[in-house]
Amino acid sequence: MVQRLAEEQRLPGAVAHGGLVWLAGQVADDAGLDAEGQTADILRQIDALLAEAGSGKARLLSVTVVLADIADAPAMNRAWDRWLDPAAKPARMTIQAPLVDPSWRVEITAVAAAGVGAAGAGAASRG
Amino acid sequence: MVQRLAEEQRLPGAVAHGGLVWLAGQVADDAGLDAEGQTADILRQIDALLAEAGSGKARLLSVTVVLADIADAPAMNRAWDRWLDPAAKPARMTIQAPLVDPSWRVEITAVAAAGVGAAGAGAASRG
Amino acid sequence: MVQRLAEEQRLPGAVAHGGLVWLAGQVADDAGLDAEGQTADILRQIDALLAEAGSGKARLLSVTVVLADIADAPAMNRAWDRWLDPAAKPARMTIQAPLVDPSWRVEITAVAAAGVGAAGAGAASRG
Repeated sequence: MVQRLAEEQRLPGAVAHGGLVWLAGQVADDAGLDAEGQTADILRQIDALLAEAGSGKARLLSVTVVLADIADAPAMNRAWDRWLDPAAKPARMTIQAPLVDPSWRVEITAVAAAGVGAAGAGAASRG
Repeated sequence: MVQRLAEEQRLPGAVAHGGLVWLAGQVADDAGLDAEGQTADILRQIDALLAEAGSGKARLLSVTVVLADIADAPAMNRAWDRWLDPAAKPARMTIQAPLVDPSWRVEITAVAAAGVGAAGAGAASRG
Repeated sequence: MVQRLAEEQRLPGAVAHGGLVWLAGQVADDAGLDAEGQTADILRQIDALLAEAGSGKARLLSVTVVLADIADAPAMNRAWDRWLDPAAKPARMTIQAPLVDPSWRVEITAVAAAGVGAAGAGAASRG
């Protein structure tokens, strides 16, 4: 079963299937913030999406961070390091690329393991 | 078992394993088209690859759209919205990045759930 | 169970879970090399990470290559083609994007199937 969470007009916030949770690219609700503030804003949204999927940041597997300006990497990392569970770090890649809305300084996408007993966790056996 | 579909010289069009179908970056066969036409061309190729894998667009989990020029986002979205199954939207991220061939305006990669009973669907239990 | 391999301060080299191995973005240890040399350096690191995860290059599913300069695509491909197992090619996408350290010409991330009997291979059933 493919489950969609936090659906918006063009895309859901996340899709759960077969024990994995695939997050759509997350951007800050408040695009007036600087890169550090936008990152913290995005990480709060990721926490909420993962919680809705019965997962959590300690179950993140892989994260891609896209910065509109790679010079913002230290600012992004300040918010990241405050948020990160040091016992449960995901694989990560960070690149620079222009984003759809020029006010977005950061966009983050990720894949997480669904939680044990989560809605999506048993889906693998159902294909 | 790792299954490869639509193999070309350097890479296959898709790889199926463990209930997931991983698409290689797809570009338009006709690179003379504008961004909307290239997107429609790519989405037709994705439909064909997914069908070959026993999957389909309603089983897409996550899509990454790369535009050579982010100003083409509305044109890409026109083709996307015509094609999308509104009841089965995948997670998605869109960024701007130069592509290998400068005539390519759009490149799309994706991960889908294999279909129930598809060739790749039972592979998880075989490692 | 989520397993982390080759942990560094901010991120692990790879994360294994549910029969998949998610590699963090890999960059050359010797950033003084040209794009072909950096690619070969990265591919050696990928071989080592996959071996540690009980996987290997023939079990790669999907690879993303990021080049600081897309004009380096032929140089990257020379190293890639020498390394690739022609019977076991992964899906791949190549884009240009500035990387965190300007001396990095290439960054590669990938997802592989864990090996049969590998530490991560049985994790799917445990959620």
